[in-house]
Amino acid sequence: MLQEEFASRLLESAVTELSRLPGVGRKTALRLALHLLRRDEAQSVALGEAIIDLRRNIRYCTRCHNISETETCAICSSPSRTASTVCVVENVSDVMAVERTRQYQGVYHVLGGVISPMDGIGPDTLEIDSLVERVEQGGIDEVILALPATMEGDTTNFYIFRKLAPFTDLKITQLARGVAVGNELEYTDEITLGRSILHRTLFSDSFNKR
Amino acid sequence: MLQEEFASRLLESAVTELSRLPGVGRKTALRLALHLLRRDEAQSVALGEAIIDLRRNIRYCTRCHNISETETCAICSSPSRTASTVCVVENVSDVMAVERTRQYQGVYHVLGGVISPMDGIGPDTLEIDSLVERVEQGGIDEVILALPATMEGDTTNFYIFRKLAPFTDLKITQLARGVAVGNELEYTDEITLGRSILHRTLFSDSFNKR
Repeated sequence: MLQEEFASRLLESAVTELSRLPGVGRKTALRLALHLLRRDEAQSVALGEAIIDLRRNIRYCTRCHNISETETCAICSSPSRTASTVCVVENVSDVMAVERTRQYQGVYHVLGGVISPMDGIGPDTLEIDSLVERVEQGGIDEVILALPATMEGDTTNFYIFRKLAPFTDLKITQLARGVAVGNELEYTDEITLGRSILHRTLFSDSFNKR
Repeated sequence: MLQEEFASRLLESAVTELSRLPGVGRKTALRLALHLLRRDEAQSVALGEAIIDLRRNIRYCTRCHNISETETCAICSSPSRTASTVCVVENVSDVMAVERTRQYQGVYHVLGGVISPMDGIGPDTLEIDSLVERVEQGGIDEVILALPATMEGDTTNFYIFRKLAPFTDLKITQLARGVAVGNELEYTDEITLGRSILHRTLFSDSFNKR
């Protein structure tokens, strides 16, 4: 039926593949496909090749599992980064998010996800063992758990915390949770607000840490 | 700077190419690229290949310029369509829109755009001459101008109307314009409402034409 409507197997297949992208329905996919048809052939081919190239040839840092051009990524191999502080994040875009703050000088460890039994993601499919190995090899003073503030993130935090508990000298921290900067109390959810009252901090500390 | 932020030339190039798509900014492009990295290699490669294949191998009907798998498209070559009625549309998605109504039994002529001097689109870059040729070859009784109700659409309508004026036997019609089905008068723009009063139709006609 839809095949008939599109009058072309090529268009049908492009629309089907495009509509598998997150947030792209069949209508948007059709709009994109017709746009690809209208513009220069070189540009459309460049997009197709960039997608194939990305998926086939991307490499990951053997140490932190961030995207990398080389065996160890630019962050891991930079002498100006503090290799003794490791920030554990869910995925590559979180590394970018933390980097954009320009507040962090340590290195990373990308898990590749968080524990989510509902989606069939157990600890074994994540880079948790390799994190424990890095700590075993020594030279790490602090592990910062920077996973999402969701139930899955909390589960993963706790799992990692237990795995790392044997290393008694290791400092394990997590991101501060509380009222987001710029938010009105009125519109802050009650769990966040409740926690920020319980875990209130010394006002004088805010001068030192900006 | 951004190259540095992405830590990979492959990711950078995929994001750049994706962000050229209409309605996709760099942030969405990055989200899409990371999604492409996460899911099965076969799926991402299929998307890339579908895009290249679409652009390289798509064919157009030599008669109506609609997308086609064959020399003349399924609509043009169907014996059940009225070849003497030609509906002139801006592009391929308009053919699909009219087909979805299931109210039209004639054939099409896809212009490939509308006259728009601002965008450098003159009559010569559109399939207007080939429309005149089709009429010259005979067998066409009616040309329906189904271009968008914009200034560019009106300009193109008028240009085609003048080109076809010498064919005195030819009936040239255009889409009915008026209050859209389901619209409140209160929220209908005044130009549309004004025109629909001027061009009011006989109430009894609505019984025959549903």
